[in-house]
Amino acid sequence: MSSSNEKARPNANAVELGHHLSELSKKRTTSPLKGMQKLILPPGTIKMAGGQPDPLYFPFASIGGEAMAPDSYALQPTDAKPSKRGWFDWFMGKERTTTITIPRFPTGPNEMSLADSLQYGPATGVALLQTFINDFVERVYAPNYENWTTLVHVGNTDGWSRAVQTLCNPGELILTEEWTYPSAVANSAPYDVKPVAVGMDSEGMSASALEDVLANWDETERGAKRPHVMYTVPVGQNPCGMTMGIERKKEIYEICVKYDVIIVEDDPYYFLQEGTYIHKTDRAASSSLNKENKDFVRSLAPSYLAVDYQGRVVRLDTFSKTIAPGSRMGFFTCNPVFAERLERQGETTVQRPCGFGQALIGQLLTKQWGLDAYIRWLHGLQAQYTARRDALVDGLLDGFEFSLSYGDGASYLKGLPVYSCFPKKGSRAYKREKQVGRMLSFVAPTSGMFVWVTVHFEGLPPVPEPEDPEDPRDHETRLWVRLASAGLLISPGAFFASTAEVREKKPGEGHYRIAFSMGPLDELTRGMKIFGKEVHAYYEESLRA
Amino acid sequence: MSSSNEKARPNANAVELGHHLSELSKKRTTSPLKGMQKLILPPGTIKMAGGQPDPLYFPFASIGGEAMAPDSYALQPTDAKPSKRGWFDWFMGKERTTTITIPRFPTGPNEMSLADSLQYGPATGVALLQTFINDFVERVYAPNYENWTTLVHVGNTDGWSRAVQTLCNPGELILTEEWTYPSAVANSAPYDVKPVAVGMDSEGMSASALEDVLANWDETERGAKRPHVMYTVPVGQNPCGMTMGIERKKEIYEICVKYDVIIVEDDPYYFLQEGTYIHKTDRAASSSLNKENKDFVRSLAPSYLAVDYQGRVVRLDTFSKTIAPGSRMGFFTCNPVFAERLERQGETTVQRPCGFGQALIGQLLTKQWGLDAYIRWLHGLQAQYTARRDALVDGLLDGFEFSLSYGDGASYLKGLPVYSCFPKKGSRAYKREKQVGRMLSFVAPTSGMFVWVTVHFEGLPPVPEPEDPEDPRDHETRLWVRLASAGLLISPGAFFASTAEVREKKPGEGHYRIAFSMGPLDELTRGMKIFGKEVHAYYEESLRA
Repeated sequence: MSSSNEKARPNANAVELGHHLSELSKKRTTSPLKGMQKLILPPGTIKMAGGQPDPLYFPFASIGGEAMAPDSYALQPTDAKPSKRGWFDWFMGKERTTTITIPRFPTGPNEMSLADSLQYGPATGVALLQTFINDFVERVYAPNYENWTTLVHVGNTDGWSRAVQTLCNPGELILTEEWTYPSAVANSAPYDVKPVAVGMDSEGMSASALEDVLANWDETERGAKRPHVMYTVPVGQNPCGMTMGIERKKEIYEICVKYDVIIVEDDPYYFLQEGTYIHKTDRAASSSLNKENKDFVRSLAPSYLAVDYQGRVVRLDTFSKTIAPGSRMGFFTCNPVFAERLERQGETTVQRPCGFGQALIGQLLTKQWGLDAYIRWLHGLQAQYTARRDALVDGLLDGFEFSLSYGDGASYLKGLPVYSCFPKKGSRAYKREKQVGRMLSFVAPTSGMFVWVTVHFEGLPPVPEPEDPEDPRDHETRLWVRLASAGLLISPGAFFASTAEVREKKPGEGHYRIAFSMGPLDELTRGMKIFGKEVHAYYEESLRA
Repeated sequence: MSSSNEKARPNANAVELGHHLSELSKKRTTSPLKGMQKLILPPGTIKMAGGQPDPLYFPFASIGGEAMAPDSYALQPTDAKPSKRGWFDWFMGKERTTTITIPRFPTGPNEMSLADSLQYGPATGVALLQTFINDFVERVYAPNYENWTTLVHVGNTDGWSRAVQTLCNPGELILTEEWTYPSAVANSAPYDVKPVAVGMDSEGMSASALEDVLANWDETERGAKRPHVMYTVPVGQNPCGMTMGIERKKEIYEICVKYDVIIVEDDPYYFLQEGTYIHKTDRAASSSLNKENKDFVRSLAPSYLAVDYQGRVVRLDTFSKTIAPGSRMGFFTCNPVFAERLERQGETTVQRPCGFGQALIGQLLTKQWGLDAYIRWLHGLQAQYTARRDALVDGLLDGFEFSLSYGDGASYLKGLPVYSCFPKKGSRAYKREKQVGRMLSFVAPTSGMFVWVTVHFEGLPPVPEPEDPEDPRDHETRLWVRLASAGLLISPGAFFASTAEVREKKPGEGHYRIAFSMGPLDELTRGMKIFGKEVHAYYEESLRA
């Protein structure tokens, strides 16, 4: 890439990163089509090499859709309450939309068509979309070296799966946050690649914990080489919801330079940076998100790409949260050596993202909206998720008495504003002779879709031996089942422990991940009412037993 | 599955096939969602477990398209000439289409919606489409055991890639036809899984050649265990174009029972069964394809599923040739033990096929067309490809003098009607003092998209040492480059050799695979004019040199 005029950026010394490639990855053959592309074909060459069906055999003369206006959502979270309109309004046609159409054959030299998007083609995807993605990365992430490249994949799950096979040999370990996305672990485990948990603090992965793990690596004790690949969710850390700023990213990057580690940055929540939660009693005074479009991008915590001068970051972007999960499309941004191997893997697995998706998303982004309008759309989503985060945390706090303090000690809460929740005044747990102490603690997320709640079961008697041996034997699972039976389905925290040690570190604690991504705001409030009520009831019953 | 009332079919003893699962596959974790699904949730449960974005954040209020009428294409190949109308007619709007629309929210209990298809969901895909696929498999392939199952994938390349990882351990070998689809080999090679070439004859893979390989397997000599997995393209064999009938499939299946081999049937060309080529001078009398819709399905060579009573077939179907390559969607049909592992792999790689594609294809197939209409569409495609095959072979023969004979000896041509091509009367090659012998031989394909041509370079002097060491040193590549420079791009045969031994078996022979899938018929004719002319010129120049 050479599209930036602002500054001279170094070329990543990508060839020197070649030793990170896995044995499996090195065995992928270069596409035979590569050789054919070197041929100079005269104009009008008749192509009878591949098995492309004639576009007249595609059973659609055109496809299209009603695309929403990019400014459909307000920029102020206070104006952006999803419950205000709800489902009914949308049925009544208050949406502002325009019709987009992709015809079978292109209507001009640089136009989208089904003949292109629904045909076989390179694993780099439809060219128009590829250009858009490059422009987007340059504008939003501004990678810190010159020869970066992008490559479409079919979502970050595919992206991480390909990264593991490209970078890791069996028996190797990968660095991850203590609590992490379970699918990332499930992804790599069959290839005998397991996580090493790195301690967390107020910004997600802790730099000192990382240095500690790497500096004191004992190959014999660990049974594996020092890890050379990191999996990290630096924004909207899944499940804990922290946001990592630029200074921490620089620190971690330098440690990765020192120990020669590749950073795989899985960043699906990047545009859902909701900022600090302010309790509803003080919120009216705050309008931190009322920013101009240009300021929106600048206000976001920069990507690792912005500090990467050696090409050691593989960034995973997805359209799952910004368009729809069913897009099954996203993209890598990385150095050209890794990108070439990832492209070869794409050719022999998923080929290219679905052409129906590429056509519709491509037409929307490149023709209907354009880059500025897409950024406006993302800005609107940020406000929506901020209103959602606020509604969920408001509802959660409403169910308890609470206090706010700043985390201390060695826990991942260090330095963070921690809400501690106690029995609600007037509840039976409140009125007990022997007062019930802290029931919950949590840090309101600054990004993402989830609130991560710690439940303090320490004061409860141990779980009695269940009558049915199949029944759960721990507080976390028992309370989770109780909540589900009461009509609230959330995620048990145990899913998110990167290792068994992390899961078992504090036996008295349980965790839940609660999503605020879906449904009208009053549903989030109702959900938290159930939560508060059932937590109280669970304590009561456990103490009574 | 229990949808057939016709006969009692056995249950595949699928558990006994568990020993075919690879070590890698066994390590895939069962989805934690499985446990959650066992919970009995009260109606109206609020779901805050997963990170599903609200459907109101999908930027499309609806998507849709102009869908072609399922009987757009004539059933008689003689009426089905794509050149008759050409591109211009289509621009002029002669297509019969109806508008299909998929709204954001479902309009009824069993209706397609973006809220469903664009959302996260199980790797089994959208339920409506899953039901359609099951009905389709029952109707068209009628599997020979009861508890078969289907599972969507993102195209047969993904399907085969997943099958390799599910069934093969590193160092194992897979049985394939001598000449095979190169991507299938490129797919498995990085996992240290390589092909063993099995000889071919008039129906594709030879049963006796297979028995020979398996019965005489010498583990020491071969350096690997006897293969337990076969990759085969039984219809429209790629690249050679044969069609395997039911008797041969039974024979091969029984050998696979005897030696405990799993058959992976990659069958993208199943509906492009064009039948025997009849030279244009005799063609008018023939109307073999004028069949009723019901007869169309019965007239097709049955799938391996129809002979599978033990669940040892993994069938790969794709919409790439029947809807569009950009569908990136297809499906497995196999026993439930393999299907469960393949589904787990889907969850941690591609998740589910693209929702835009699922919505549009799903609405077209399940709501707009239905099963009968889709079969009518496939029947129309069969006629189209038959007209294309005929046009290509006609054009090819027009460039030469030719004779028809039946293949003998041990070659893969045994029993097949072989066209041998000689210099055209009046050409300089024809007039040479020392007569030039057979230049080409080929068997007209009975299925698929390709003609596989053998070029007899035996009579030519060896290729002279090239001035530029980068230039090709063999006749096949030299003639291929010459054809490309003259405006005809075809595929060199060397791409399709399953092993180096196959490629080098007959040094005097070269091969090309010529596709007739695209462009109007007169373009196919023009392509073959270039072919005939350049082959003559190449012979002339080589003999003169």
